[in-house]
Amino acid sequence: MEDVQNHAPKVAVDIDRVGVRELRLPLLVRDRAQGSQQTVASVDLGVDLPSAFKGTHMSRFVEALKDWSGEISFQSVRGLLQNVKMRLGAQRAYARFSFPYFINKAAPVSGHKSAVSYQCRLTGELDNAGQSFLLEVDVPVMTVCPCSKAISNEGAHSQRALARMSVRMTSFSWLEEFIEIAEEAGSSAVYTLLKRNDEKYVTEHAFARPVFVEDVVRAVAQRLSTRDDVEGFSVEVESMESIHNHNAFARIERGQKI
Amino acid sequence: MEDVQNHAPKVAVDIDRVGVRELRLPLLVRDRAQGSQQTVASVDLGVDLPSAFKGTHMSRFVEALKDWSGEISFQSVRGLLQNVKMRLGAQRAYARFSFPYFINKAAPVSGHKSAVSYQCRLTGELDNAGQSFLLEVDVPVMTVCPCSKAISNEGAHSQRALARMSVRMTSFSWLEEFIEIAEEAGSSAVYTLLKRNDEKYVTEHAFARPVFVEDVVRAVAQRLSTRDDVEGFSVEVESMESIHNHNAFARIERGQKI
Amino acid sequence: MEDVQNHAPKVAVDIDRVGVRELRLPLLVRDRAQGSQQTVASVDLGVDLPSAFKGTHMSRFVEALKDWSGEISFQSVRGLLQNVKMRLGAQRAYARFSFPYFINKAAPVSGHKSAVSYQCRLTGELDNAGQSFLLEVDVPVMTVCPCSKAISNEGAHSQRALARMSVRMTSFSWLEEFIEIAEEAGSSAVYTLLKRNDEKYVTEHAFARPVFVEDVVRAVAQRLSTRDDVEGFSVEVESMESIHNHNAFARIERGQKI
Amino acid sequence: MEDVQNHAPKVAVDIDRVGVRELRLPLLVRDRAQGSQQTVASVDLGVDLPSAFKGTHMSRFVEALKDWSGEISFQSVRGLLQNVKMRLGAQRAYARFSFPYFINKAAPVSGHKSAVSYQCRLTGELDNAGQSFLLEVDVPVMTVCPCSKAISNEGAHSQRALARMSVRMTSFSWLEEFIEIAEEAGSSAVYTLLKRNDEKYVTEHAFARPVFVEDVVRAVAQRLSTRDDVEGFSVEVESMESIHNHNAFARIERGQKI
Repeated sequence: MEDVQNHAPKVAVDIDRVGVRELRLPLLVRDRAQGSQQTVASVDLGVDLPSAFKGTHMSRFVEALKDWSGEISFQSVRGLLQNVKMRLGAQRAYARFSFPYFINKAAPVSGHKSAVSYQCRLTGELDNAGQSFLLEVDVPVMTVCPCSKAISNEGAHSQRALARMSVRMTSFSWLEEFIEIAEEAGSSAVYTLLKRNDEKYVTEHAFARPVFVEDVVRAVAQRLSTRDDVEGFSVEVESMESIHNHNAFARIERGQKI
Repeated sequence: MEDVQNHAPKVAVDIDRVGVRELRLPLLVRDRAQGSQQTVASVDLGVDLPSAFKGTHMSRFVEALKDWSGEISFQSVRGLLQNVKMRLGAQRAYARFSFPYFINKAAPVSGHKSAVSYQCRLTGELDNAGQSFLLEVDVPVMTVCPCSKAISNEGAHSQRALARMSVRMTSFSWLEEFIEIAEEAGSSAVYTLLKRNDEKYVTEHAFARPVFVEDVVRAVAQRLSTRDDVEGFSVEVESMESIHNHNAFARIERGQKI
Repeated sequence: MEDVQNHAPKVAVDIDRVGVRELRLPLLVRDRAQGSQQTVASVDLGVDLPSAFKGTHMSRFVEALKDWSGEISFQSVRGLLQNVKMRLGAQRAYARFSFPYFINKAAPVSGHKSAVSYQCRLTGELDNAGQSFLLEVDVPVMTVCPCSKAISNEGAHSQRALARMSVRMTSFSWLEEFIEIAEEAGSSAVYTLLKRNDEKYVTEHAFARPVFVEDVVRAVAQRLSTRDDVEGFSVEVESMESIHNHNAFARIERGQKI
Repeated sequence: MEDVQNHAPKVAVDIDRVGVRELRLPLLVRDRAQGSQQTVASVDLGVDLPSAFKGTHMSRFVEALKDWSGEISFQSVRGLLQNVKMRLGAQRAYARFSFPYFINKAAPVSGHKSAVSYQCRLTGELDNAGQSFLLEVDVPVMTVCPCSKAISNEGAHSQRALARMSVRMTSFSWLEEFIEIAEEAGSSAVYTLLKRNDEKYVTEHAFARPVFVEDVVRAVAQRLSTRDDVEGFSVEVESMESIHNHNAFARIERGQKI
């Protein structure tokens, strides 16, 4: 049968990236506490396409995924990218996995454990110059407003905020370490299971540490700046303000644009 | 040209509703303060289809919309539904408009005005038994947790919550009246523009009126129950708990299922 | 510490349903081919709340989930609902799980296998009258337009459509059976991995079976009507029309309102 | 009252951008056919924040918006950004408006007109080096697969695809010009209202011009490359493949990273 993809295109322009997107599949992720955990990912895969070819061969991305172990790590993504490059005859390969990651977290007083989910993305890119590896994680935290607290006779508005980290890594590190950095920067971490004594603790703990989104983004940026395994990063904190119907956000970028 | 839609179908079954969905268009909505306001809607239109016909004629829905005034009201939706019924030769016609509605709201102390947006849906259905008209509006409010406040030495967690009302109307009423019912049931309304003295007032006002989602849903249900223009309703309140990564919700339904 | 939830509410109205929503957790689902499969769910849990109590105890929902096996089935949901009723002192309990389900499907000519994902929801409700069990699954299919094919000298527009089934079950049945019903009603099933000879087959197979959304919804409804394990259902088919920026849909409901 | 925002922060780090997000408001947009059109936008506003200040003053963003005309254009965004910079005492200001834009498009044979909506984003950034202006528009088109057509005895799969352009402008140009570029690059434009003779034309026209996402992205990139008002751009085309449950995409970037 005719291979239309191998024809010359009408417009001879190099394509930066071409591939498949939002392909869902089960995924195994490395987990500090248990070795590994089973989750579900949405995957994007892509390659460059030189100006000489009309189209890429989309089914080969799926074949490369089938060959692959399905356990994601800094190392295993390299293997996937090499396979994609080879199967597609490409100079550059790209893979992005988006998935929820679960941590079994103990409540602060009762110690009762329950799973909290964090949305993560791992992105690898491989070309002749080497491999880059981007780790992204969205961490929900609680923020208590310092201004509202300072000016009010009682109380202060609080809300759920999301700290989104994008970190360009030079080696493997646990997702848990980045989640802890964000949780320590908020007024409090969030939990799935809180008994009455836990709720008392979380409330008092949070009101003793009021923070703006600006405070959270700075604290996370400072911690990331000191890590040897981090080449560059962006951090964005967005709070669903309880006194508004819009959000507040703050963003810091360091190193190469992400 | 062949009219395939008029053929007999392979499976002779009546279809309850068939039509178009997520058609976006500019829309004029009646507004208590200004007479009318311009917004943008996503529209669904549908009719029944008897077992004798293979398909409906989708382009006629768009033609009925073009004929229509574009100013939505209890009365004008009736005109649209009659036109849809006639053009499509249907027994039942259905229309649903989803749009943001803006209210210019004054801050509680400074009096500074700014627009707050509320997501609304208006749904009309017309058959031989008459017309039904469903008004839906999602109202963001602030909730301060009564449990957290009672057990903690200082503070209480608060968050943005959404009160979603679905109200089966017997006559025209202003959207503003339903929005006020929900805002009065929360610990506080939310605002777009709050100066420092407003933020102090909102914080103190909210902490003096802590409510669970259960309290909000009950207060709204009670107010809706006493209205003569309301035939039946459902209310659902969902809060984005600031101490959790999941939400709390409560729901009350009265009258025929909505 | 004070149990504010047990206080009398200001407004003494029964609440139909109160609970937690969008709680994410890992989930094991029964799988016809492999016994079971691991996936990830978003969970809602709720109970009724009598007018005598100000609030429910939200943390007990999470405790009931922790007690639970985590393998979902008609039977195991009953156990969860009984535990929720008991822990919360409720008359009615409700649970809803939303998750992607994977089937390893063979391409029609090459036989190459790859995972296709289907978004599913399982909802159980238990009260003194008994348990109801609702199975929902969204099945992507391809539709080729019969009108476009009949009137054009060449071709016909096709598109991805989604068949959404909500089925009230009387006993356990495999998800796979309902997925097959929808796939057989479209012009073709969709696949994750198609080699060139498969793509030729799928194209020709689909063009030999052009269908409107009306044809798909009727074929699915007819098949569901004949099943002994189905008490009532709704089916909705929505196609992302390739010639429009809006969608076409058709819907059939049978039995009690879902 | 205390101005907590003016305090020194605990962590003295410059913040790249801080502000408000997802603020909804009515918006007037310049329109080639009618002078202007009324729509509804979601707005983000931000500024830099030096390391000396704990927080920005969020209410001033809303005040700057209130001052502003509400008619968006290359020129008027400059005025808004200058006001934001001044009110906030900032070195850099940023504004982003996301809104649907409507074009009244004639069907290709019948000439019947109907509104098609296009999601647009306009982003301005102003600092001491000058102002940048980014125009983004998502254009739905139809694609007929050249491979499927070449290898099949009959038909070819087609689908709705989205061409997303991000264009860094040096001067004002009409949104309509960029929409036309994308529509001409697909197998066919999409329409809201098509009568039978229009549908025949669109089908035959599209089947005479089969294109991959690669063909569309190249054709758009070539056209953008020749424009004097374009400093740099990215184009991404994503098709909701009708034979798969995942999408295909292709992307070209030129000039500075966007």
